[in-house]
Amino acid sequence: MGSVALDSIKTPSGERKNILGGSATYLSLAASYFSPVNLVSIVGSDFPDSYLGLFRKKNIDLKGLTISKESKTFKWQGYYEGDLNEASTLKTEVNVLANFKPEIPQEYRDCDYLFLANIDPEIQMEVLRQVKKTKFVVCDTMNYWIDKKIESFKKVLVRVDALIVNENELKQFSGESNLLQGAKKVMEFGPWLLVVKRGDSGAMMFTSRSLFSIPAYPLEKVVDPTGAGDSFGGGFIGYVCQQDSTEERILRKAMVYGSAIAAFDVGAFGTECLENLKFKEIERRYRVFEQLTKF
Amino acid sequence: MGSVALDSIKTPSGERKNILGGSATYLSLAASYFSPVNLVSIVGSDFPDSYLGLFRKKNIDLKGLTISKESKTFKWQGYYEGDLNEASTLKTEVNVLANFKPEIPQEYRDCDYLFLANIDPEIQMEVLRQVKKTKFVVCDTMNYWIDKKIESFKKVLVRVDALIVNENELKQFSGESNLLQGAKKVMEFGPWLLVVKRGDSGAMMFTSRSLFSIPAYPLEKVVDPTGAGDSFGGGFIGYVCQQDSTEERILRKAMVYGSAIAAFDVGAFGTECLENLKFKEIERRYRVFEQLTKF
Repeated sequence: MGSVALDSIKTPSGERKNILGGSATYLSLAASYFSPVNLVSIVGSDFPDSYLGLFRKKNIDLKGLTISKESKTFKWQGYYEGDLNEASTLKTEVNVLANFKPEIPQEYRDCDYLFLANIDPEIQMEVLRQVKKTKFVVCDTMNYWIDKKIESFKKVLVRVDALIVNENELKQFSGESNLLQGAKKVMEFGPWLLVVKRGDSGAMMFTSRSLFSIPAYPLEKVVDPTGAGDSFGGGFIGYVCQQDSTEERILRKAMVYGSAIAAFDVGAFGTECLENLKFKEIERRYRVFEQLTKF
Repeated sequence: MGSVALDSIKTPSGERKNILGGSATYLSLAASYFSPVNLVSIVGSDFPDSYLGLFRKKNIDLKGLTISKESKTFKWQGYYEGDLNEASTLKTEVNVLANFKPEIPQEYRDCDYLFLANIDPEIQMEVLRQVKKTKFVVCDTMNYWIDKKIESFKKVLVRVDALIVNENELKQFSGESNLLQGAKKVMEFGPWLLVVKRGDSGAMMFTSRSLFSIPAYPLEKVVDPTGAGDSFGGGFIGYVCQQDSTEERILRKAMVYGSAIAAFDVGAFGTECLENLKFKEIERRYRVFEQLTKF
């Protein structure tokens, strides 16, 4: 569950207008390489059929995708500069998301693996209310919600198993510049697992008893970082779901698969790279990570 | 070979005046846990005997350390703020370094493993002229020399096997914001091995055929980052020298030992942590790295 959007993006490599985007889009596409996906989101009457076709082609179930006749699809316009590690927002048109009250289809409600992608924490909470039993719930968020809806977000945190955020969000939420101290503080709010995405510095995974750190996949060129974090999350939960386990050794491999797929995502604009990936390409990057880190 | 200094340092944890510092100091102390060290540097008449005693206690040979009666020891004054990743210089008193013409003792001239720590590249070159045969020469530098003496530095690069620099220095020298592209450019100048130190993002090692990446040792508190890079270099070359090999598998382990010892260095002001380390403590951090990175 998260947003499905039409993005307009400018990076040093070029520009695209109204292309498929949104947290749940990247997440679903990435996860689809590992597991069946049920997408919960909302789009407007302007949402292109071809994008629906792409989801279907990836076996992403769309019973949970509301197509609203009353409003338009959520739009985000932004750009990246310099080291491409941070997006700058030019414009946000909330549109259909303004009154989004997700209605989880009955057949989704017994849900083992649930990812609450970046969206208003009150919407995340509404999903948690409707879902009956889960094995593993992960949530993401962004600086905006930490700033504007911190109390709602804290209520979500109590109910989830894992939080996946980027380094700046962790620092913002915890008020700590040190990652370890920030991690401790965040985990006091509920999650037993914390994943911190660090851009070209890789990613870290914290539990109360363990710490795992993985470098970024070495890339000569980043075309468009949009969706890298969500692709990571999709690969992560996709692999966990495929293995049906949250053992430490599985979670570590999930971090590597998440990193591998995020590294594909940034190689082209929007979802282009995630649309036509072969699983053996993902496996190849997994093996690059083995070579990259072994000693 | 490098500088021996008296440092005055201010960090969020406190302040110290005229404490033992300098690139060759940190390098020698760190390397001494692995191998015998011959130190080549210069100090002034004001250099405290107790610091000479510390070098001797660590079996660091001082035949190559000139004690000049004519001038004072090199002094550096600086401070760190925020995430402590970068030092700000307040004042530099070059003193004895101004006319330093190293005279390598005869018994040092057949030198298998040589580390040219950060110092004027013309001094680095003078050392290379005097040394007869080597198996492995590593050099470091800093933004100041890349800015002021780039041509001299390039001449050094032609003659060394390995360059160890931090991420900003690599970007400055190569003009590339992408690490892989920057690494390629730098290696065209001579070195077959490049190590990039990335602060709390870890370190990377490049050869023409391989790439190794290691996260930073997870620390809850950094007291004083001074000397972290040089301690890394000392642990790195100390282990390579101990193993008498520059095979890839040895170099990778050397990266881990360098990272482990650098993580000790930053735990207290100046050389305090490097003075009283036990080897089994270093081994323990090596094993933490194994746990931290395996999947």
